[in-house]
Amino acid sequence: MSKILIINGPNLDLLGRRENDIYGEETIDMINSEIKKIAGDEGVECEFFQSNHEGDIVDRIRDADASGIMINPAAYTHTSVAIRDALSAKAIPVVEVHISNIYAREEFRHKSLIAPVVTGQISGFGKDSYFLGIRAIIAAVKGDRR
Amino acid sequence: MSKILIINGPNLDLLGRRENDIYGEETIDMINSEIKKIAGDEGVECEFFQSNHEGDIVDRIRDADASGIMINPAAYTHTSVAIRDALSAKAIPVVEVHISNIYAREEFRHKSLIAPVVTGQISGFGKDSYFLGIRAIIAAVKGDRR
Amino acid sequence: MSKILIINGPNLDLLGRRENDIYGEETIDMINSEIKKIAGDEGVECEFFQSNHEGDIVDRIRDADASGIMINPAAYTHTSVAIRDALSAKAIPVVEVHISNIYAREEFRHKSLIAPVVTGQISGFGKDSYFLGIRAIIAAVKGDRR
Amino acid sequence: MSKILIINGPNLDLLGRRENDIYGEETIDMINSEIKKIAGDEGVECEFFQSNHEGDIVDRIRDADASGIMINPAAYTHTSVAIRDALSAKAIPVVEVHISNIYAREEFRHKSLIAPVVTGQISGFGKDSYFLGIRAIIAAVKGDRR
Amino acid sequence: MSKILIINGPNLDLLGRRENDIYGEETIDMINSEIKKIAGDEGVECEFFQSNHEGDIVDRIRDADASGIMINPAAYTHTSVAIRDALSAKAIPVVEVHISNIYAREEFRHKSLIAPVVTGQISGFGKDSYFLGIRAIIAAVKGDRR
Amino acid sequence: MSKILIINGPNLDLLGRRENDIYGEETIDMINSEIKKIAGDEGVECEFFQSNHEGDIVDRIRDADASGIMINPAAYTHTSVAIRDALSAKAIPVVEVHISNIYAREEFRHKSLIAPVVTGQISGFGKDSYFLGIRAIIAAVKGDRR
Amino acid sequence: MSKILIINGPNLDLLGRRENDIYGEETIDMINSEIKKIAGDEGVECEFFQSNHEGDIVDRIRDADASGIMINPAAYTHTSVAIRDALSAKAIPVVEVHISNIYAREEFRHKSLIAPVVTGQISGFGKDSYFLGIRAIIAAVKGDRR
Amino acid sequence: MSKILIINGPNLDLLGRRENDIYGEETIDMINSEIKKIAGDEGVECEFFQSNHEGDIVDRIRDADASGIMINPAAYTHTSVAIRDALSAKAIPVVEVHISNIYAREEFRHKSLIAPVVTGQISGFGKDSYFLGIRAIIAAVKGDRR
Amino acid sequence: MSKILIINGPNLDLLGRRENDIYGEETIDMINSEIKKIAGDEGVECEFFQSNHEGDIVDRIRDADASGIMINPAAYTHTSVAIRDALSAKAIPVVEVHISNIYAREEFRHKSLIAPVVTGQISGFGKDSYFLGIRAIIAAVKGDRR
Amino acid sequence: MSKILIINGPNLDLLGRRENDIYGEETIDMINSEIKKIAGDEGVECEFFQSNHEGDIVDRIRDADASGIMINPAAYTHTSVAIRDALSAKAIPVVEVHISNIYAREEFRHKSLIAPVVTGQISGFGKDSYFLGIRAIIAAVKGDRR
Amino acid sequence: MSKILIINGPNLDLLGRRENDIYGEETIDMINSEIKKIAGDEGVECEFFQSNHEGDIVDRIRDADASGIMINPAAYTHTSVAIRDALSAKAIPVVEVHISNIYAREEFRHKSLIAPVVTGQISGFGKDSYFLGIRAIIAAVKGDRR
Amino acid sequence: MSKILIINGPNLDLLGRRENDIYGEETIDMINSEIKKIAGDEGVECEFFQSNHEGDIVDRIRDADASGIMINPAAYTHTSVAIRDALSAKAIPVVEVHISNIYAREEFRHKSLIAPVVTGQISGFGKDSYFLGIRAIIAAVKGDRR
Repeated sequence: MSKILIINGPNLDLLGRRENDIYGEETIDMINSEIKKIAGDEGVECEFFQSNHEGDIVDRIRDADASGIMINPAAYTHTSVAIRDALSAKAIPVVEVHISNIYAREEFRHKSLIAPVVTGQISGFGKDSYFLGIRAIIAAVKGDRR
Repeated sequence: MSKILIINGPNLDLLGRRENDIYGEETIDMINSEIKKIAGDEGVECEFFQSNHEGDIVDRIRDADASGIMINPAAYTHTSVAIRDALSAKAIPVVEVHISNIYAREEFRHKSLIAPVVTGQISGFGKDSYFLGIRAIIAAVKGDRR
Repeated sequence: MSKILIINGPNLDLLGRRENDIYGEETIDMINSEIKKIAGDEGVECEFFQSNHEGDIVDRIRDADASGIMINPAAYTHTSVAIRDALSAKAIPVVEVHISNIYAREEFRHKSLIAPVVTGQISGFGKDSYFLGIRAIIAAVKGDRR
Repeated sequence: MSKILIINGPNLDLLGRRENDIYGEETIDMINSEIKKIAGDEGVECEFFQSNHEGDIVDRIRDADASGIMINPAAYTHTSVAIRDALSAKAIPVVEVHISNIYAREEFRHKSLIAPVVTGQISGFGKDSYFLGIRAIIAAVKGDRR
Repeated sequence: MSKILIINGPNLDLLGRRENDIYGEETIDMINSEIKKIAGDEGVECEFFQSNHEGDIVDRIRDADASGIMINPAAYTHTSVAIRDALSAKAIPVVEVHISNIYAREEFRHKSLIAPVVTGQISGFGKDSYFLGIRAIIAAVKGDRR
Repeated sequence: MSKILIINGPNLDLLGRRENDIYGEETIDMINSEIKKIAGDEGVECEFFQSNHEGDIVDRIRDADASGIMINPAAYTHTSVAIRDALSAKAIPVVEVHISNIYAREEFRHKSLIAPVVTGQISGFGKDSYFLGIRAIIAAVKGDRR
Repeated sequence: MSKILIINGPNLDLLGRRENDIYGEETIDMINSEIKKIAGDEGVECEFFQSNHEGDIVDRIRDADASGIMINPAAYTHTSVAIRDALSAKAIPVVEVHISNIYAREEFRHKSLIAPVVTGQISGFGKDSYFLGIRAIIAAVKGDRR
Repeated sequence: MSKILIINGPNLDLLGRRENDIYGEETIDMINSEIKKIAGDEGVECEFFQSNHEGDIVDRIRDADASGIMINPAAYTHTSVAIRDALSAKAIPVVEVHISNIYAREEFRHKSLIAPVVTGQISGFGKDSYFLGIRAIIAAVKGDRR
Repeated sequence: MSKILIINGPNLDLLGRRENDIYGEETIDMINSEIKKIAGDEGVECEFFQSNHEGDIVDRIRDADASGIMINPAAYTHTSVAIRDALSAKAIPVVEVHISNIYAREEFRHKSLIAPVVTGQISGFGKDSYFLGIRAIIAAVKGDRR
Repeated sequence: MSKILIINGPNLDLLGRRENDIYGEETIDMINSEIKKIAGDEGVECEFFQSNHEGDIVDRIRDADASGIMINPAAYTHTSVAIRDALSAKAIPVVEVHISNIYAREEFRHKSLIAPVVTGQISGFGKDSYFLGIRAIIAAVKGDRR
Repeated sequence: MSKILIINGPNLDLLGRRENDIYGEETIDMINSEIKKIAGDEGVECEFFQSNHEGDIVDRIRDADASGIMINPAAYTHTSVAIRDALSAKAIPVVEVHISNIYAREEFRHKSLIAPVVTGQISGFGKDSYFLGIRAIIAAVKGDRR
Repeated sequence: MSKILIINGPNLDLLGRRENDIYGEETIDMINSEIKKIAGDEGVECEFFQSNHEGDIVDRIRDADASGIMINPAAYTHTSVAIRDALSAKAIPVVEVHISNIYAREEFRHKSLIAPVVTGQISGFGKDSYFLGIRAIIAAVKGDRR
């Protein structure tokens, strides 16, 4: 039975508790249990990880025992070469997701350091970005085209 | 019964017949009938349109009698303010999809003029970008959050 | 009796029917008949042309049998070298008009590829941009200083 | 009876006396009396001010007892944040005019610091820029849409 | 017997009828018949196509039944990703020609979006650019090195 | 009784022990007790936190039970979107302080990613930056204008 | 008894009378008398100067018979090398203050030409910027560390 | 008998009284009388003007009754389009001088807005820049090659 | 007996286990024992530290009880001002090493934030970069020229 | 009988002996004798010159007793203002040729300093670039249109 | 008796024989003998050197047995770090001269790599640039302020 | 027995005789004999070449009969595409060395045109850069990994 690692970057533990006009009203736990259900229907297991620490995310990627990764790198999207390198070193499919449409926000959020090394990116669908993303990573893992 | 307009931009009529290493092996017709089936299951009708002409795409958007649009603007992603303005004038949800990961290709393909005015963007999952996209636009239309 | 060609670029057929906060409430037909009346008072005939197609606009400029052109290139203002070249090849006065103040909008709308080859530019006066423009092009044609 | 303040920036006192190929042959006084006549026909009073001093122009804007301003900021178009701030603080319509087509001259003249805070801009019609401008500001004052 | 498609972009139907100081005095028909003659001597057939429409040029490239293409993309040289993608998808040799030396004109004409996907480029020899180009494309087709 | 959280970023534990010509001679503890005294006089409590870890600072901001924050982000001023987002999500006044005048140092220190989301910034007064800052944050908290 | 010169740049005479959402509701006179009081408590005299003229400010700096300067250069912050040079030539401490947070406004306001030559900068605290600033300059003058 | 106008820009009245390591030890009066003597030997009269006001310098150039101008625009070198336009409108030879080598100082001092419209520029020879400059302008006036 | 601290940044614990075509086949432990041997021959002791955490590396530098540092900052080379500041505050020689030639990789890897504050940099020699680096740092420590 | 000077820049003596995938398999001598034959058929004489020295190429251009020049400036294409100036000073037609398509190689090879001063440029046809070039320069010399 | 080395860079041997509208009508020999005469009057000897070879100029500077250098680096002004380094290594005064006003020519001629390491620069006075320059270098050598 | 060619670029013949604070006190001959000794110990022969001429260095690389090259391109590091191409054409390992840390000097010295085509780069260790470099090139030649 294959397993997907879901990583949420800095400040995403606050989902549903801050700036709801941008990030929506559901908490990370509510979203995670919905992800789990979708994956379960496809016979796929999920592991969840959230951290505000760039190094912890790098460690977690290195240690991941999974067939694919879905990551919302949040603020580190735009600044972390270390996470990029960690994902690139891990020879498995990766999907990058964003709750808000990063291309409709401040200029500095338009550039993702992560995007060039992932299978694909989903941006702007609110919590649905995660639900589309879990389907995408499962499909990618099954086809393992990257 | 709500309806989604699916627009494919320049050269996408060639899908499955050119550069298969980048764009995959399925034709636009094969992809379209799969989109139709997914939408049908959700009780949503589809209309398909492909053109190599910027002006035709602008006309089609203007004339669209639909609840939402899924568009792969292809080459016009990076050069068409006219399509951007047409989408922006149409007060309905829009999803932008790309077969290849545009952020892993040439520098000039990293910038989308369309992205800032759409609900969300899906890039890099091959034909799956369309199948994720149709689900995304249907969800967006139902919630009509944009 | 001299004749002026009035060209409206992409999406301007929607005037009065979209984003009224930016573009005002009058339709293109209402504006055109007011232009016609002003020109008539000066003994000048008008021809009107609207298209969403860059190529059609280039064709129309080439075929124009007129003493002057008033053009609102809309989205093509910022992207069309072809329209620029067509205007430049036509040895008659040209006035560029914009309904909204393009310098108070998004950065990419601040640069006009058309402006360097026209007689003058009028931007930001709502429908009045057209009425000022028709006076300007008639004066320019009469003096034919360009 | 409403009043319009007409401001001319640095070196415009030389109109008709220098570089006639660029700026035309009429003096500022000849232009001003024509402006006055057009405004008079509309029942609007005019006040004229010319200065080579950025600070004087800022002072004059502050002290203006007028319903609208027409300004040709000349060289300060491209360098004066102070005039921009003064205009922006004055809650009345403003029209920016230029005799020559600033977009067809040196690169550094293409950028106006003033344009983003005015109602509209008219550029390139020789002395006619003023005559179009006075009509534009009167219309703007009457509708006071800005 | 092999065949070459010769494509002329926007405004080139005006050759010999506009800006003769830049583009020379011969019409497109005169040039085409000389191209035909050179090709005939080499036992190669020619097809000619001119359009002001980006989309038409993309269509024509897609539908081309030829061993090689000679294209003068004119204004679209600098703005069309769609034509670039169409040429790139067509697995045959392509030669890009320009009548004037684009590197001695305005800055924005120095950058060709087409050049990186063609066999070679010829620029600046007036009508001779076409005559050199037809020889170049025939040689390229024969050797089919690209 | 309201409480202020004082955060010191990377390397600031070294204050008074390194590069004294730039950062002055007092240690962080000496400065902190002076801050405490000023705040005490205003009836405000202080909590102090120093870390070299970006993630720890993000965590600390999230967990803060305070009415205002004074932060010297040090090196993270120029690189951390995560701290910016954490501050932005926290709906309380924030003051950014710098010991040295960051605008008089290397070019890359002139740009603060933090500044656009804080109430105000104080830079260049040595240890006094903290003493001015504590007064500023207390005033801001009292007026809670931000 | 030492003396501080307080300089206010262009348009600041309008404080409390324009754009109150940005600049607050107190007039320059109300602010000045509060500054005077704070300084008086420290046994320091104040002189006040406001001008919309760059040259007057340069003159005033040159002629200043003071131990320190507090300046809000307003619009000249971003454009005046002359004021920078005048301050730099004056071998006394200088504090730069801004009412609004200049780093949270338009891009062109993020760059201060003055900052690299002052002791320190305070930005964003409304009228409090002045009250923090007067304390800062008094402290700087007493320590005369610059 | 021909006359040369010598203009010194902002802060140059401080020569010999500030930053002597950069600007040398002689005052503007000492320099001026040496300039006068050199010119006198050539049978040329001199008029001297110093101002910290951009507008005054523009006025003075307009009113100049001279055969040539030697100007040290100081800080306005890098920011004044108005002085550039004033010099450009005056159809006489102009020499730009700088005491220090502006190309060996801060980056923003490397760009002169004035240089493109003068006969020539002399930079870096201390007070000798003026003495070389007076010879240069006299020669230019005599040959009146510009 | 002097001591050298050897720091390896993020993902370098994976050496020999990932992307061997870029980073070679030896593990970090194999490399470390060879470094130790070279240093031992020179009578110098080594301490080794690897971390994926920027903050940990900053802490470790601060706490280092060593005469010199050899650091491969990996991904942090391009993003960490904090590590730069930590090294800069430590008044001992530092050598920066890279396994791959960072100047022959992606554009964003060409810029090292660390390089301007180290004694020297060695890049591109595979594992030999470490062996050359240990010699270099020992020599630097002995001469303590920096 | 007219004469053409053929100049080959640095490293081109290595043709056919290095990087054959880029530059083809024929030596410079083989190419030169084919050029000579083509020219001979047109009744034109050839002189050949190759050098790795920028100064030698400048000397050779100065001393050339020819009616036209064909030059492959190789590496100096992108760095030599001296060769540009030498060609520009020589009032005869010049053709610039490149074996490889310089617009499909590294970014820094896309910019030619030479192109703005030549009659035309031919790039990308392998050895055929020379054979097309010799025809082009002969035609240019005969028409002497430049 | 002190000696000045006068260096002329590439293509300056052509003075008086090419592009006379830019460079004037006198030959380098005519100019040199006038320089010699001016220097002789001051009791200073001259040595002259012209070369089109960057390396020769570097050699000549190294070998110079002179008290000062006057150099017109011509095309190498904008491209030679080697000449810059050679001048910088030579601890004697250097004057850079240009016949034409380099700031009024093509953009790429506005930047001098040489200027930051010389005593001063003289640009735009035709042959007089040399005559002013020889006076300047003699004065600089006498005062040896650099 | 294998042989290494050691190339020193412009002005390096001055080592030990100029700017000793930057380049150290030993002459090129003293350094060369130490290089020779190190190489000799490894059973490798050395050839030395210094030139101020770009073309000579290109020639020498072309003619080199060696297994590897160590080059200090000095000023040509930043400007020579010709040396880059020569090294690139030579299919042997190359090591680039710099005496000073080029990344801690002027901005324009941070970019090496040579680095992308060499095996590795060593910068900043004074004369030790050569001694580390000779070891590096010998190792590279033995492993011939490049």
